[in-house]
Amino acid sequence: MEKKKINLLMFSGEYDKALAALIIANAAREMEVEVTLFFAFWGLFLLRDPEKMTLEDKTTYEKMFGMMTPKGPEELPLSKMNFGGIGKEMLLEMMEDDKAPRLIDFLNGAIKKGVRFYGCKLSVEIMGLKKEELIPELEIVDAKTYLEDAMASDMQLFI
Amino acid sequence: MEKKKINLLMFSGEYDKALAALIIANAAREMEVEVTLFFAFWGLFLLRDPEKMTLEDKTTYEKMFGMMTPKGPEELPLSKMNFGGIGKEMLLEMMEDDKAPRLIDFLNGAIKKGVRFYGCKLSVEIMGLKKEELIPELEIVDAKTYLEDAMASDMQLFI
Amino acid sequence: MEKKKINLLMFSGEYDKALAALIIANAAREMEVEVTLFFAFWGLFLLRDPEKMTLEDKTTYEKMFGMMTPKGPEELPLSKMNFGGIGKEMLLEMMEDDKAPRLIDFLNGAIKKGVRFYGCKLSVEIMGLKKEELIPELEIVDAKTYLEDAMASDMQLFI
Repeated sequence: MEKKKINLLMFSGEYDKALAALIIANAAREMEVEVTLFFAFWGLFLLRDPEKMTLEDKTTYEKMFGMMTPKGPEELPLSKMNFGGIGKEMLLEMMEDDKAPRLIDFLNGAIKKGVRFYGCKLSVEIMGLKKEELIPELEIVDAKTYLEDAMASDMQLFI
Repeated sequence: MEKKKINLLMFSGEYDKALAALIIANAAREMEVEVTLFFAFWGLFLLRDPEKMTLEDKTTYEKMFGMMTPKGPEELPLSKMNFGGIGKEMLLEMMEDDKAPRLIDFLNGAIKKGVRFYGCKLSVEIMGLKKEELIPELEIVDAKTYLEDAMASDMQLFI
Repeated sequence: MEKKKINLLMFSGEYDKALAALIIANAAREMEVEVTLFFAFWGLFLLRDPEKMTLEDKTTYEKMFGMMTPKGPEELPLSKMNFGGIGKEMLLEMMEDDKAPRLIDFLNGAIKKGVRFYGCKLSVEIMGLKKEELIPELEIVDAKTYLEDAMASDMQLFI
């Protein structure tokens, strides 16, 4: 029997939505389902390594944009009720009370379990992100590569 | 011929998005398409029964969270132009002018027409929601049960 | 071999999300994939022609709503970091630096390349939009027509 396959387009760059996506991705890998995550626009901030930021070879706008946006998974805001971070802290406390892993743990789990990481070429170029600022597992691809992968999947979500 | 099937992941907990999802769900049932709605995170607030709220057996954060969040379908905000509820009132007036049913009517229609209601186990636990606070048709399942249902569907949306 | 087909539900009416959707739609057409875009709620504002607005035969709420909402693709806000338009200007400058086309160019490309444009009948009626205010390529259809098209596609997204 052919392996099942899913493809999630990670657009929004929000803590709660990324959490939902990565919980699905991890569960799918445990069921031996192939998983591709395609990161575009705000979604790319999830893959930034806070230790590897650079300002070199960037325009003024790219520098400003890079400084105003989240640096890595734990800096992402909630999609609602963020309240300048207080709502997010509340959610994190509630997650800890239930011994639920954090977003960074689900991200590391996905990497370990062999999820495929694709990054949108156009988004990376427009935002001026450098390959070395993002996780090394990320492969930069164009919209057509995304589409081929997505259309060959049993399920696609825009998150 | 095998029956068609759709699966909608209800994440956002916003009046307008929930309306779109439930209009699709009702139309699908009228076409004899099988429908599963999987409620996660903010989406669960759509299924709260305002008459059956409880504070028992909840942590302080869970109590606060429960009080700050919408209690049932008609309390959900719009995803944009909510303006503290004024934008939503405007939309509701415009819907009434066209004799369009309200969200609660579409929800009751979906229940009557045999839509399957799944709720995300992890979300329910983290938010401290009790089964008796939610509609009785809801079945609490894990991410793998969602995935199996979704991958066996002809269409999946993240709403 | 049968042609591949995708269906995107355009709900949100935000510049960045519409851009992502139209980049996918254009890339798909270049791969000879059939594309349907179904515009509902806020998504319809992308198709307004700023030259063809009318106040005739509209209720007071419909007039107010029409004036408070974006008139055509270039007026759409960002889904985040819009900052009253400053964030969007920054993104547009960064796009120009990379010689990336604007949203209106991708929309015109999609029209030229034969993307199918569907508009949600219920949304159009509730918002009081007139057919002549929207692009002439738009065909007004009901939820069942959307569902038939979507379920016959290889990929569906809610954007």
